[in-house]
Amino acid sequence: MADKIFVEVSARHLHVTKEDLETLFGPGAQLHYIRELSQPGEYLCEERVDVIGPKNTIARVSILGPCRPVTQIEVSATDARSLGIAAPVRASGDIKGSGAVKLRGPEGEVELDEGVIVAKRHIHTIPEDAEKFGVADGDVVGVKINTPDRSLIFGDVVVRVSPKFSTAMHIDTDESNAAGAAGELWGEIVKL
Amino acid sequence: MADKIFVEVSARHLHVTKEDLETLFGPGAQLHYIRELSQPGEYLCEERVDVIGPKNTIARVSILGPCRPVTQIEVSATDARSLGIAAPVRASGDIKGSGAVKLRGPEGEVELDEGVIVAKRHIHTIPEDAEKFGVADGDVVGVKINTPDRSLIFGDVVVRVSPKFSTAMHIDTDESNAAGAAGELWGEIVKL
Repeated sequence: MADKIFVEVSARHLHVTKEDLETLFGPGAQLHYIRELSQPGEYLCEERVDVIGPKNTIARVSILGPCRPVTQIEVSATDARSLGIAAPVRASGDIKGSGAVKLRGPEGEVELDEGVIVAKRHIHTIPEDAEKFGVADGDVVGVKINTPDRSLIFGDVVVRVSPKFSTAMHIDTDESNAAGAAGELWGEIVKL
Repeated sequence: MADKIFVEVSARHLHVTKEDLETLFGPGAQLHYIRELSQPGEYLCEERVDVIGPKNTIARVSILGPCRPVTQIEVSATDARSLGIAAPVRASGDIKGSGAVKLRGPEGEVELDEGVIVAKRHIHTIPEDAEKFGVADGDVVGVKINTPDRSLIFGDVVVRVSPKFSTAMHIDTDESNAAGAAGELWGEIVKL
């Protein structure tokens, strides 16, 4: 259990369906690749959209590619409050009854009844690393973060194991701020 | 150690000197009481000011009274990033070399070279409760928070004991979001 896990901070972002992409950016629109993200196959795109809530708009939120079967917006709880919506803490893909919002692109708007979540913190890991860490798919563990002023132990960290992943923990900006993160961040998996 | 401590979430706010208050609100300006806060003698005021950073402005930030010897702005790390300033994690009052910002009131502006901090999480407690919790002034403890989706243990929690306090832990909005707080929040003091 002594090995450290790399902790990545996810800024707010969207995943979009091909259909919503075309509504927002026009018929035949494609996502344009900027750079790869840590999870194999995922990439940051040039396309950005405004996320519009009843209270505020968050301008120019990044889309992550490729297109997905369902449009999903991942924001921090701070963002959700600013937008004026209720966004539940959920695993990616679990959007039933989640937050409602409007998306605005250069060519059109999409009104969503649901799709906005605050991501539940989690670990992606490959089988070899899972064995090293002593964890299995579906485990819920703690991750200890040491920083000069705001050390903490995150609980409720869900472990997902797949040979397709790259090993990293994902947290959002509220969580990294609560841990006083600055620069590269590593954690230690602990049983709580 | 089984007793729970009440955890309060501090939204962004300011403390101002009498001099800065007059610059912002005009000669002879006074703070107008709205309601008491948990720490005896502190109160929320009607007066609000805009906090202006190089990147963004946060409008209408609350002032807490009474006036203090030094003007201090307490924001979340999310706010600091939005303002476009570097604000260190500090105990209240420790503002040397902290973040710079401009304040704008209805009657004038104040340009501050320092004064913006992200509050270091802490516990205010009275001697009787300190004894019950098994802690002393200056101790650094952990506080365990249980919520449905984002349980965690805050480390680096400084304990301050005084008969003038009311017993409560103070965290900021990033920290309460990281803990998945909704409604009344209680924590358990633990040794880390």
